Amino acid sequence: MKVVVLFSGGKDSALASILLEPFFDVELATFAFGGHDTDGAAKEAARVLNLPHRTIIFEDEVLEEALEMLLATGHPRDALNRLHRHALEVLSQDWEYLADGTKREDRVPMMTPDGVRSLEDRRKVHYIRPLAGYGSKTINTLASSYMDFETLNSEVHPASDFEVGLRLELEERCGPDLIARVFPANHMHTRVIRRKRI
Amino acid sequence: MKVVVLFSGGKDSALASILLEPFFDVELATFAFGGHDTDGAAKEAARVLNLPHRTIIFEDEVLEEALEMLLATGHPRDALNRLHRHALEVLSQDWEYLADGTKREDRVPMMTPDGVRSLEDRRKVHYIRPLAGYGSKTINTLASSYMDFETLNSEVHPASDFEVGLRLELEERCGPDLIARVFPANHMHTRVIRRKRI
Repeated sequence: MKVVVLFSGGKDSALASILLEPFFDVELATFAFGGHDTDGAAKEAARVLNLPHRTIIFEDEVLEEALEMLLATGHPRDALNRLHRHALEVLSQDWEYLADGTKREDRVPMMTPDGVRSLEDRRKVHYIRPLAGYGSKTINTLASSYMDFETLNSEVHPASDFEVGLRLELEERCGPDLIARVFPANHMHTRVIRRKRI
Repeated sequence: MKVVVLFSGGKDSALASILLEPFFDVELATFAFGGHDTDGAAKEAARVLNLPHRTIIFEDEVLEEALEMLLATGHPRDALNRLHRHALEVLSQDWEYLADGTKREDRVPMMTPDGVRSLEDRRKVHYIRPLAGYGSKTINTLASSYMDFETLNSEVHPASDFEVGLRLELEERCGPDLIARVFPANHMHTRVIRRKRI
């Protein structure tokens, strides 16, 4: 059985993929916005993990809707949830098993229980969160056993996650002052640089 | 690394064990009450899965406390949660990694987020719910791929789960009429009978 994992190149989505690998043929998918080449980090991490990877470009309308939410709420939460939900909908067109790297303590992005039920029933898919039952401490221990990863400042080294794409688009349109008001400062992310114990 | 899985002999805790097996040395533990030999189903399922198994007997005080809760509330929920929490506490004395077969849709037994944090911080353990991010449909598909299991009526073929132990104790003390009022009728459970694709 094939499963597609929503992949940012960081340790969480990488560990989710590694946990699924003995039971599924794992494929990785990264979403990007048209104007910005934000999938580089994910492509490189997928190569390191030795897993097939593809980049999917969000439609312009989805980006516009997310930016509107961002400006209306002054907070990235709803926009990030919207992008996450849309990404899973897109993946459900081509895969029956969908997964991501959201973990026990995560709050955003996160599908609601109703959203999960709706996605699974409407699209006849299985949505799996391999890390939903793992705490951060356990995930860090396991991730360190199976890969080397580095922790980077997202402003200096962009990740391939939704937040980076949104920031770049918003900055282009509204300048850095608004970015500083809407997004938390010093956002950090991880990037897989080597796989261990294959 | 060793992990102990709270094991009833059914498909959920068996699948949780199978999902952990590529990453941990899995050991199974079943809890029973002193007076009743309820661990037979779990022992046999552990043999079929080819995983090491032990039975741990609940202390009398724990049983008494659970029975009091059952009689006070007229519902098994709090008593089952109490037994589950106590079982994890007991396991945390000998193992650093603890797991169970609770899944996405389960409501009872279930640790609260605060209970999980307290257990992990106080006892310096990692609590893992391998099936927390899997829905019932996905679990049934995966379980059917990796094992044959049968669905049985718990009154005719007792399972090795907390509910069966509590029912037997309560029936012994208060008779079958109370059982019918406190526990849902026609409780069914699954039992692993063969492992596939080892």
